[in-house]
Amino acid sequence: MIITLQPGIPAQQREQVQGFVSQLGFSTTAVSTQSGEYLVAIGSREVDLRQVHQCPGVKDVHRVTDVYKLVSRTWKVKPTQVDLGDGVCIGEGSHTVIAGPCSIEGEEQVAKTVDFLVAQGVKAMRGGTFKPRSSPYSFRGLGIEGLKMFASIAHAQKVKVVTEVLDASQIDAMLPHVDVFQVGARNSQNFSLLDELGKTRKPVLLKRGLSGTLEELLQSAEYIFSKGNDRIILCERGIRTYEKAYRNTLDLNAVPYLKEKSHLPVVVDPSHGVGIRRYVPNMAMAGLMAGADGCLLEVHESPEQALSDGAQTLSFAEAEALFRQLERLHEAREQLRLA
Amino acid sequence: MIITLQPGIPAQQREQVQGFVSQLGFSTTAVSTQSGEYLVAIGSREVDLRQVHQCPGVKDVHRVTDVYKLVSRTWKVKPTQVDLGDGVCIGEGSHTVIAGPCSIEGEEQVAKTVDFLVAQGVKAMRGGTFKPRSSPYSFRGLGIEGLKMFASIAHAQKVKVVTEVLDASQIDAMLPHVDVFQVGARNSQNFSLLDELGKTRKPVLLKRGLSGTLEELLQSAEYIFSKGNDRIILCERGIRTYEKAYRNTLDLNAVPYLKEKSHLPVVVDPSHGVGIRRYVPNMAMAGLMAGADGCLLEVHESPEQALSDGAQTLSFAEAEALFRQLERLHEAREQLRLA
Amino acid sequence: MIITLQPGIPAQQREQVQGFVSQLGFSTTAVSTQSGEYLVAIGSREVDLRQVHQCPGVKDVHRVTDVYKLVSRTWKVKPTQVDLGDGVCIGEGSHTVIAGPCSIEGEEQVAKTVDFLVAQGVKAMRGGTFKPRSSPYSFRGLGIEGLKMFASIAHAQKVKVVTEVLDASQIDAMLPHVDVFQVGARNSQNFSLLDELGKTRKPVLLKRGLSGTLEELLQSAEYIFSKGNDRIILCERGIRTYEKAYRNTLDLNAVPYLKEKSHLPVVVDPSHGVGIRRYVPNMAMAGLMAGADGCLLEVHESPEQALSDGAQTLSFAEAEALFRQLERLHEAREQLRLA
Amino acid sequence: MIITLQPGIPAQQREQVQGFVSQLGFSTTAVSTQSGEYLVAIGSREVDLRQVHQCPGVKDVHRVTDVYKLVSRTWKVKPTQVDLGDGVCIGEGSHTVIAGPCSIEGEEQVAKTVDFLVAQGVKAMRGGTFKPRSSPYSFRGLGIEGLKMFASIAHAQKVKVVTEVLDASQIDAMLPHVDVFQVGARNSQNFSLLDELGKTRKPVLLKRGLSGTLEELLQSAEYIFSKGNDRIILCERGIRTYEKAYRNTLDLNAVPYLKEKSHLPVVVDPSHGVGIRRYVPNMAMAGLMAGADGCLLEVHESPEQALSDGAQTLSFAEAEALFRQLERLHEAREQLRLA
Repeated sequence: MIITLQPGIPAQQREQVQGFVSQLGFSTTAVSTQSGEYLVAIGSREVDLRQVHQCPGVKDVHRVTDVYKLVSRTWKVKPTQVDLGDGVCIGEGSHTVIAGPCSIEGEEQVAKTVDFLVAQGVKAMRGGTFKPRSSPYSFRGLGIEGLKMFASIAHAQKVKVVTEVLDASQIDAMLPHVDVFQVGARNSQNFSLLDELGKTRKPVLLKRGLSGTLEELLQSAEYIFSKGNDRIILCERGIRTYEKAYRNTLDLNAVPYLKEKSHLPVVVDPSHGVGIRRYVPNMAMAGLMAGADGCLLEVHESPEQALSDGAQTLSFAEAEALFRQLERLHEAREQLRLA
Repeated sequence: MIITLQPGIPAQQREQVQGFVSQLGFSTTAVSTQSGEYLVAIGSREVDLRQVHQCPGVKDVHRVTDVYKLVSRTWKVKPTQVDLGDGVCIGEGSHTVIAGPCSIEGEEQVAKTVDFLVAQGVKAMRGGTFKPRSSPYSFRGLGIEGLKMFASIAHAQKVKVVTEVLDASQIDAMLPHVDVFQVGARNSQNFSLLDELGKTRKPVLLKRGLSGTLEELLQSAEYIFSKGNDRIILCERGIRTYEKAYRNTLDLNAVPYLKEKSHLPVVVDPSHGVGIRRYVPNMAMAGLMAGADGCLLEVHESPEQALSDGAQTLSFAEAEALFRQLERLHEAREQLRLA
Repeated sequence: MIITLQPGIPAQQREQVQGFVSQLGFSTTAVSTQSGEYLVAIGSREVDLRQVHQCPGVKDVHRVTDVYKLVSRTWKVKPTQVDLGDGVCIGEGSHTVIAGPCSIEGEEQVAKTVDFLVAQGVKAMRGGTFKPRSSPYSFRGLGIEGLKMFASIAHAQKVKVVTEVLDASQIDAMLPHVDVFQVGARNSQNFSLLDELGKTRKPVLLKRGLSGTLEELLQSAEYIFSKGNDRIILCERGIRTYEKAYRNTLDLNAVPYLKEKSHLPVVVDPSHGVGIRRYVPNMAMAGLMAGADGCLLEVHESPEQALSDGAQTLSFAEAEALFRQLERLHEAREQLRLA
Repeated sequence: MIITLQPGIPAQQREQVQGFVSQLGFSTTAVSTQSGEYLVAIGSREVDLRQVHQCPGVKDVHRVTDVYKLVSRTWKVKPTQVDLGDGVCIGEGSHTVIAGPCSIEGEEQVAKTVDFLVAQGVKAMRGGTFKPRSSPYSFRGLGIEGLKMFASIAHAQKVKVVTEVLDASQIDAMLPHVDVFQVGARNSQNFSLLDELGKTRKPVLLKRGLSGTLEELLQSAEYIFSKGNDRIILCERGIRTYEKAYRNTLDLNAVPYLKEKSHLPVVVDPSHGVGIRRYVPNMAMAGLMAGADGCLLEVHESPEQALSDGAQTLSFAEAEALFRQLERLHEAREQLRLA
């Protein structure tokens, strides 16, 4: 059960609602986010929602039988728009491209990429400065200094910074420079990290685990939301299967499923999802038609010289062609919707 | 190595070529299909192709290092068009819909479906009369009598008949009534069946195995081709993964991969690929943008009353809407290609 | 519901029982096997079993809610012993080794292997003469002549012949020479083949599909049983997963699961299950302790020269050591059971 | 390349070796663990190892071509024994049981479990006080106070404490109370956590990821080792597959593989690996025969009332029977080894 409270409800009144619901046999969690105040009540008893609705300070009540609650579409039918600032928004009705290199490698690389993206009308840039690597001896990114550099160049042109956070201890230092915290597949169930991101007010792009179920993904999003941060973007990035013809198996079934079950926006990462450069454009377009609200693309001026993930990274020329195709295809999609 | 022989090469000359290639250390298989005559030569020695090219009766020679040979794009760059007759063609440049019920249930059902499809401009109808069922106690289809009825109604309106064959022993009886033999996921590596289908001249729609690799799919197609039948359509229909939110995981990565590796047409089966009716349209459109040459759709006048697979079957109204969307999207795709 | 009929029940009486059960809303299948006569009644109505029990000619009645019926342990608690003749039996309480080469290659190979097995006290030999191969250009076995040779040498020393059947059309020719028909992983849901094997009286060793569920395996066994053949041995042979460090992932969880759900014997194939020779002994012993009633081992005088599967095949010396370990371990297992 | 340095090598001399190796084109990482000092040199050039061996301060040099280095058996053939103190050791030649409840629930539970284990001769107890849960609303454990209570009761009877750590920030507070840090499947690639555990001197029990490859597991162990902690125990705990008849698919192939590739001890967790109580004993014994050096068992006085994982938890009576079977089976295994 999700109880939406009146905006600015006095603490005492909220406690009275909590007390009432507890008496009915529910345990409650009070949640205060950017957009509202809620009580999430967990319990198995049947209850007449009208009783709860009548409590002073209660705005609305919904029964949610999903294992996830606040991220469910059961209580919030309207799709969520995640606002990155400066008019950059991710959510239903648009298709937002987030592009950039796998790793931030240096000032020149960042400057060129930002210029390229600005020229293309792309307003959000991805780039890793803390890199999760299977081997301890691999390049692990430029760290916080790299992030500062990345952010200063990007922000100078109002390009939004999307970058991966690996550990809760990094959040404070990263916070001033980041527009979207990205949580990678290996951290999709790092609950300490999710808890701490839930205490920030920054949007979080949450990737599905390497072999994560969609229910787990939504429950991980619930961690963030229930700690107070409702700006969450879900990301399908391919799962691990027996098929080794490509890096991962992009599971586009996930897109209509997630869009139906949750009000959160969904983006697709075809670069990791297939892992082979020349298949990325087709898969990006397939993701759009599956219903995605955006995509994450690895782009590099010289993919062959990229420090990581070169094999799945588009050159500027390839990216430019794809950006245009995605724009036109998005228009076609909107027309089909209206038809 | 694939050696394309001159059309109508005399038997003696072909044997001379075979003898020459055998001496070079290769084992050869002579293949004679609807479109040509070939020698497939298997061996590991390095050889100067020009030597082979100079043999009388040899039209062309290609080195093919893939584990599959005749279905590889290495020697035949031009995409294959599979002609079903009456101007119905499956192959690059078009997007062909094959629609119909999971099971053929009776005359009225077939007649209504054929009328519906004709009205929609759909020219190929699927429908099972021999059904593979996990349980021996489930409905196993109307059998050969059902097929005759299906074919006579469909053919009266020039609608092509696509139906599943379960065993080599059924081929002869089915042959006069079938336009496309469908090989189901469970038979994707039934090599006896593939061998026998290779001896017919009817097109074969070959589905990927439940957890088949793409290399296995292409090798199964090679079975058919190497026995003399080059009219093969590959079908991605979802694979078995850990994710149980839907029936299968539709692997659209397979589409650009297969299109690149093979000259054969590729269709997508979103009905089985996701298995939930309301997600089928998105996945059909995603398949189209991934590059598919067509799709297989389960359609029934009253899905709730279908004898099998109702949960993933579109109603006539839903199908009608989707057919139109696919047409427009196909136009958009062709425009993007040209742009 | 499974209705066990009195042995030698007159046809008329059986029809009366069938009629009675049909009236209760059940569809029935009459089954007559080596060990008994049954009616399998499928339906969803609640019924008082005592009513059915009172029908003349009915020996016993059991409700079976599993999707599989005759192979379920719900109605037959006592484990089935599958008798191969000459005192060779597979079933609970023993651990039977079936060993031999992947492919039958020639007379000398067979003779040496039979001599070796006889000397080791191994009474059943595996060896393929019809080989399922991913590629049409690979060695596909010596065929029926190879099988005759294999059987005449093996039978001369009372060694039982276990060999794979690929297609229903091969059964008649193979029948006189075979003691156990093996159904391979790729044919685990070849329902035509299962139907026809159900009409023979020869034991069938049924392998789990490449990515077959255990429920599917039991339903495939049900196909055979419901056609009249109750001599079925289930085989776990490794499943297809994302892990590529070995050929397959041997799923030993399947052993206690199958032993609990079904009365049929269960054997393990560690050769295919791990696919790397030096790990086979550990996995064979692990299978035994998981509760298997036997194992299938690939053995060859010179594994390096085997025409197929050499990498997972034990030499005679390795096999000899393992046979002894398995014997001792089996004794230890029986002592632990009694303790 | 792994360069083992002389014990107590002066810093200057080590730097000289590093300098020399750098000149050869390798990047080096200096590692100082409980047992020795090493340089790990990464590079692709061919080099004459004798040159490096001659450097003053170098004890030994090995070429290691695996992607993991220090955990590889290539340079350290002798199996590692991980000493937990008080004579409790995990490693080849023994089979160590670690048993206890999924969650620490209270003082009485801990006291009873410790008494039970001591009476059984089991010297290491598992029990979670920080629990990773898919849902934020589930019980997340008693936290640090629970751990202190657990440790004080267990240590009073010299029982070793094995407990899960979820985040690097918890290490300091946990350190005085823990004998083995357990890293759960979801954190198997939490590289920040692995780095920090590498800086402690406490043994780490590292579980394979939900769908982690064995190469990834060994690389994760490499993270810990390369930061200075060489007391690592690898744990196979079941992987995620398509088969849903049980919680996970216990992959016992992993045991002989890991034992061959690495010198680290390997334990098996059959409780999570199959997830169904009545199959746990068979799978524990199968794990032992696959070659495991120990196992992790969930045990609770009243599994039905356990706060988590009751379905896979053994009662005291069941555990007692299994402990004895494992002892006898271990004896049988050692006899088979010697025979």
